[in-house]
Amino acid sequence: MNRNDVTEKIIAAKVSKGITWEEVARRIGQSKEWTTALCLGQMTANAEQARALGEVFGLGEEEQKWLKVVPYKGSLPTEVPTDPLIYRWYEIVNVYGSTIKELIHEEFGDGIMSAIDFSMDITREPDPKGDRVKVVLSGKFLPYKTY
Amino acid sequence: MNRNDVTEKIIAAKVSKGITWEEVARRIGQSKEWTTALCLGQMTANAEQARALGEVFGLGEEEQKWLKVVPYKGSLPTEVPTDPLIYRWYEIVNVYGSTIKELIHEEFGDGIMSAIDFSMDITREPDPKGDRVKVVLSGKFLPYKTY
Amino acid sequence: MNRNDVTEKIIAAKVSKGITWEEVARRIGQSKEWTTALCLGQMTANAEQARALGEVFGLGEEEQKWLKVVPYKGSLPTEVPTDPLIYRWYEIVNVYGSTIKELIHEEFGDGIMSAIDFSMDITREPDPKGDRVKVVLSGKFLPYKTY
Amino acid sequence: MNRNDVTEKIIAAKVSKGITWEEVARRIGQSKEWTTALCLGQMTANAEQARALGEVFGLGEEEQKWLKVVPYKGSLPTEVPTDPLIYRWYEIVNVYGSTIKELIHEEFGDGIMSAIDFSMDITREPDPKGDRVKVVLSGKFLPYKTY
Amino acid sequence: MNRNDVTEKIIAAKVSKGITWEEVARRIGQSKEWTTALCLGQMTANAEQARALGEVFGLGEEEQKWLKVVPYKGSLPTEVPTDPLIYRWYEIVNVYGSTIKELIHEEFGDGIMSAIDFSMDITREPDPKGDRVKVVLSGKFLPYKTY
Amino acid sequence: MNRNDVTEKIIAAKVSKGITWEEVARRIGQSKEWTTALCLGQMTANAEQARALGEVFGLGEEEQKWLKVVPYKGSLPTEVPTDPLIYRWYEIVNVYGSTIKELIHEEFGDGIMSAIDFSMDITREPDPKGDRVKVVLSGKFLPYKTY
Amino acid sequence: MNRNDVTEKIIAAKVSKGITWEEVARRIGQSKEWTTALCLGQMTANAEQARALGEVFGLGEEEQKWLKVVPYKGSLPTEVPTDPLIYRWYEIVNVYGSTIKELIHEEFGDGIMSAIDFSMDITREPDPKGDRVKVVLSGKFLPYKTY
Amino acid sequence: MNRNDVTEKIIAAKVSKGITWEEVARRIGQSKEWTTALCLGQMTANAEQARALGEVFGLGEEEQKWLKVVPYKGSLPTEVPTDPLIYRWYEIVNVYGSTIKELIHEEFGDGIMSAIDFSMDITREPDPKGDRVKVVLSGKFLPYKTY
Amino acid sequence: MNRNDVTEKIIAAKVSKGITWEEVARRIGQSKEWTTALCLGQMTANAEQARALGEVFGLGEEEQKWLKVVPYKGSLPTEVPTDPLIYRWYEIVNVYGSTIKELIHEEFGDGIMSAIDFSMDITREPDPKGDRVKVVLSGKFLPYKTY
Amino acid sequence: MNRNDVTEKIIAAKVSKGITWEEVARRIGQSKEWTTALCLGQMTANAEQARALGEVFGLGEEEQKWLKVVPYKGSLPTEVPTDPLIYRWYEIVNVYGSTIKELIHEEFGDGIMSAIDFSMDITREPDPKGDRVKVVLSGKFLPYKTY
Repeated sequence: MNRNDVTEKIIAAKVSKGITWEEVARRIGQSKEWTTALCLGQMTANAEQARALGEVFGLGEEEQKWLKVVPYKGSLPTEVPTDPLIYRWYEIVNVYGSTIKELIHEEFGDGIMSAIDFSMDITREPDPKGDRVKVVLSGKFLPYKTY
Repeated sequence: MNRNDVTEKIIAAKVSKGITWEEVARRIGQSKEWTTALCLGQMTANAEQARALGEVFGLGEEEQKWLKVVPYKGSLPTEVPTDPLIYRWYEIVNVYGSTIKELIHEEFGDGIMSAIDFSMDITREPDPKGDRVKVVLSGKFLPYKTY
Repeated sequence: MNRNDVTEKIIAAKVSKGITWEEVARRIGQSKEWTTALCLGQMTANAEQARALGEVFGLGEEEQKWLKVVPYKGSLPTEVPTDPLIYRWYEIVNVYGSTIKELIHEEFGDGIMSAIDFSMDITREPDPKGDRVKVVLSGKFLPYKTY
Repeated sequence: MNRNDVTEKIIAAKVSKGITWEEVARRIGQSKEWTTALCLGQMTANAEQARALGEVFGLGEEEQKWLKVVPYKGSLPTEVPTDPLIYRWYEIVNVYGSTIKELIHEEFGDGIMSAIDFSMDITREPDPKGDRVKVVLSGKFLPYKTY
Repeated sequence: MNRNDVTEKIIAAKVSKGITWEEVARRIGQSKEWTTALCLGQMTANAEQARALGEVFGLGEEEQKWLKVVPYKGSLPTEVPTDPLIYRWYEIVNVYGSTIKELIHEEFGDGIMSAIDFSMDITREPDPKGDRVKVVLSGKFLPYKTY
Repeated sequence: MNRNDVTEKIIAAKVSKGITWEEVARRIGQSKEWTTALCLGQMTANAEQARALGEVFGLGEEEQKWLKVVPYKGSLPTEVPTDPLIYRWYEIVNVYGSTIKELIHEEFGDGIMSAIDFSMDITREPDPKGDRVKVVLSGKFLPYKTY
Repeated sequence: MNRNDVTEKIIAAKVSKGITWEEVARRIGQSKEWTTALCLGQMTANAEQARALGEVFGLGEEEQKWLKVVPYKGSLPTEVPTDPLIYRWYEIVNVYGSTIKELIHEEFGDGIMSAIDFSMDITREPDPKGDRVKVVLSGKFLPYKTY
Repeated sequence: MNRNDVTEKIIAAKVSKGITWEEVARRIGQSKEWTTALCLGQMTANAEQARALGEVFGLGEEEQKWLKVVPYKGSLPTEVPTDPLIYRWYEIVNVYGSTIKELIHEEFGDGIMSAIDFSMDITREPDPKGDRVKVVLSGKFLPYKTY
Repeated sequence: MNRNDVTEKIIAAKVSKGITWEEVARRIGQSKEWTTALCLGQMTANAEQARALGEVFGLGEEEQKWLKVVPYKGSLPTEVPTDPLIYRWYEIVNVYGSTIKELIHEEFGDGIMSAIDFSMDITREPDPKGDRVKVVLSGKFLPYKTY
Repeated sequence: MNRNDVTEKIIAAKVSKGITWEEVARRIGQSKEWTTALCLGQMTANAEQARALGEVFGLGEEEQKWLKVVPYKGSLPTEVPTDPLIYRWYEIVNVYGSTIKELIHEEFGDGIMSAIDFSMDITREPDPKGDRVKVVLSGKFLPYKTY
């Protein structure tokens, strides 16, 4: 057994039971973004969260242990994602990547926006011309240090 | 001459003159995000914007014409970006890609978040533990249609 | 179980029963193009369509549930397809890609032809020198917006 | 000098003179699709077409000779195109590739749709919900032969 | 079950029974080249050929059905083949590719040599300095059409 | 200066002068296949051949010297060729590669068909249904030796 | 002019003048590790450092400006480095990567060792069996946060 | 059974039993770095170490034999690692690779830092601004020899 | 069953029985180099050798048959090998490849060193500064022929 | 100027002057293998060797300085070499790589054959059936150490 087996079991259980990620998140007491990432094998649960997920998805003790092990991260099967929804994000990085770089450096100087001390919030933005997906990303700025 | 030559000339002129993208944006009358993408060869100017950029960066008439031609987009030299700041975004797509997909589908059903009918806003979020980069992405949801 | 298992079961059942995609489409009440894409794991069924497919291919309840889950799309095993029929399409993109880009921009300006708000129609075009495959693609034009 | 130099000169001349591909096509007496592909270095001109293009774009005799040489075809700089408009076509091949294959085989048997004995027609399809790009592809069906 | 399973079963049965491809071809009434390609999952059998192969290799009815389904073609596991015999062919394409292109265009003009309306004949060419492999390839010339 | 410069000069001179490869071959006294490969930078000339090519294409002494240096071989810009004519050969290797391997081993045992002790002959095969390209490849069989 | 031109000029000037990186670092008042990375186009200088480098390497005002622009980072020409010294580091990541991951997680929990808030120190470690290279890496631990 | 099976069994046993690598190392009498690499299938055990690991993880005799066989090394599933922690190391090689090369050559001349006669030590470096990961690498310098 | 299964069974049996390749070679009556390559699925056995290997490793009749089938060659899982020992050989090809090419051409003219009519001998070369691996490669020179 | 420029100048001078690598090696007083690698930009000269090469090839003082700088090594333009002579070596690594690994480990235990403390000797081996290329490689065995 490995973390991947647990992830697959969670996904299959979710389809079978018809629960939403939002409900799962409420059970865990975390945001739906972090909770989904945890369930998809990208984050690490503490004891309580593992137990809660175990109840939600019917996971045994061994499976819950795996949720507490730091996983080998990376959730996409190819370097350039083939799924259209995920590809659009890759396209944003490709088309706007140099723009993002320029503007963060203009505001903050040399460094990066952390993808670790990081949070994400995905919501529906109602719009008469068609609703929009609004995503707020917040990452700590980390300056390169000289030494 | 091609669009790439114009982009390189703009970048060199910006370094030489020491202007910021924010100032350029004010001259164009658009957001700093869209303006920077335009200057970096990813967007298309109208006649007035091309003229304004010509003044800011000292571009000739031929060069301004190129700004009005739709460019071949894509601003990164490799499939997986090597620059740490841009890579963090690729990492977000890699680690959170499946999460983003799940949550948008949970809220909207099958479809994508547009990268065309799309806007981006990058700001500084003051934080006592270290300021953060806040990025708001807004893209129209486009449902797959059946036929 | 996952969507891929359901796709493989559908394909095997189709070979075994000897039905055509056109017949399947009639049962679903959709075009043969969209129906085939659904059966091959690229589209998402509603409840009625899932039930209809369940009957056609002998799928259990759990399998029908998977048809209603948005799939991870992408139906080709390699970046450059090896199958000659599919490769010809990749070749069209490669040889005519810049032509398509120029002509759409000439007519519509900067933007894209949607692959989401999109339909396809494949028919036989009788021709004394040898029948032809006629494919009509229709995608909404989406302009890049300035902001 | 090589064909690529001629292509670049044609593109630069087109930007400078502000002519459309449609006008160029009228001068050549061919469709705008084939003419654009010719100008972008993918097709081969006959003597008359080369002369006409020479006039339109101000090409010398040596340059016209290159238009009559069969080019090394392929108009994209990367295996997976980065430009969003062209990528959407790659995505169509990726998402619908297996569907296209199934339906052509269902109608015609084993073989391919030719990308050589092939024509393409791109037009605007007015639509109250937003105009659409309509592309008609027509390729001769070539059956695999047994021997 | 899929075509690949049938191919593997055929190969294993061939090793076990010790028959040659030439014998199989005689049973099918086709050339040894086409027959081998069929057995290796690259071509499509008609009803009679499927039945004959079923007898030769002990295939059940379901397996015979798969032989009549057009396969996803491509018989090599990597882009650049690692097997020395097959690599030599890739090398011929690499070293002589531009030569082949020049000479076919010199004789026929712009177009291709079909790999679909195509046959191949492999024979032993006795030679006192060491026997040679003689391969005759014959493919219909398909001219690019203007439109 | 390097061999590549000489190759480019030869190609440009050929376009400019309008000579055919067949005529060049007659001047060299070798087959058109080998001569073209030589001119395209894949083979090595002896003193006499270099002199003859020098006359045909107007090459100086330094350039003729380069024709006598063994070149770094490989005439294609990408692993999978994008040019349709050359791609068809790659496709033949991909679709028929395992067939070629099986049949050569069936006839000769373990070993390869040499791509060095090798010759190629490309001719037009008249056919009422459309002329065909006939290519005869002849390579010495080299058995793996045990030791 | 771009940063790459400045980097190449610095490298050529260093060879020509025969200075060591250690001497350059003393002039800048930073460690030799950070200074070398700056000169090789990976870090960003402040005004004083740019002026000092200008003196050391004879750089003009425009060139000094480029040193103050945040560069597009990444100093290797291929994904897997071909240079043996640098490859050994890639090999360490490949062979010990999972070990490093396990031990950092065992000590710190889920998170990463920063490559931004990071310093490196390279020294000679005398050893009778052959001197050793000692490299000390120090990176802040950044925990994944839950939200 | 192969080494990979043994590695997977060790990892699963470790999760199940909740032991740390440090405890395992104490049982083996080696550093935690080398021991972890051994358990993850990168190093080779002697008889005693294999027996000790057998006890710790409940491995049978056959499994212990595999620990004594030199493994095919390399612990990462992709050329560019997707896991953020391991990627940071790849980034260090990418950003600082040329710096490391310059400084080792400046001190030692042409040669490499061995990744075989090599040791690694990972410790926690307490820091009021947030603890740091300190990694000491020590590799013998191997000079290129002339001959 | 296929050749790969037989290879894996041989490797597992070798670990289990603790025999050396040298002993296996003696049983086959061939060099240890060729014998190992045979056992690792790269060469083809004759009837007697297959029988001998069957005895050594406890292979059944079906498995022995597979040893007599010419295998699909290539023993490495990635284009650039990750295993340090094998990578060193790839590095030799990378660093010395152009040198090897120059010197063989200087001595022999245009052609190659055969990897088919080829043998290899690996021995220990005692050396007071540390024993060395001595590898002697011998391959027939094959000249390119003109035609 | 950089090392690559010097390498190209050396190669062009060698063609122009018609000297052999063996003569160059005599002038340097080193083996022809090491000398060729030096001239092709893979090794580092001392002062005397640089001066000698300067005389042989007519290199100026600045160019000689570059010969004394440790180069970024790697002499091949692609991961899998396209040149047939060099490819045969890649094929040897591919086909015999696992064999080489097994036999070195059988004789020496875990470790590698050094590609740094390494020498190579290429000679002609006369043979009535066709002369052979004999290559002797000698590399120090470096054991993995435990710690």
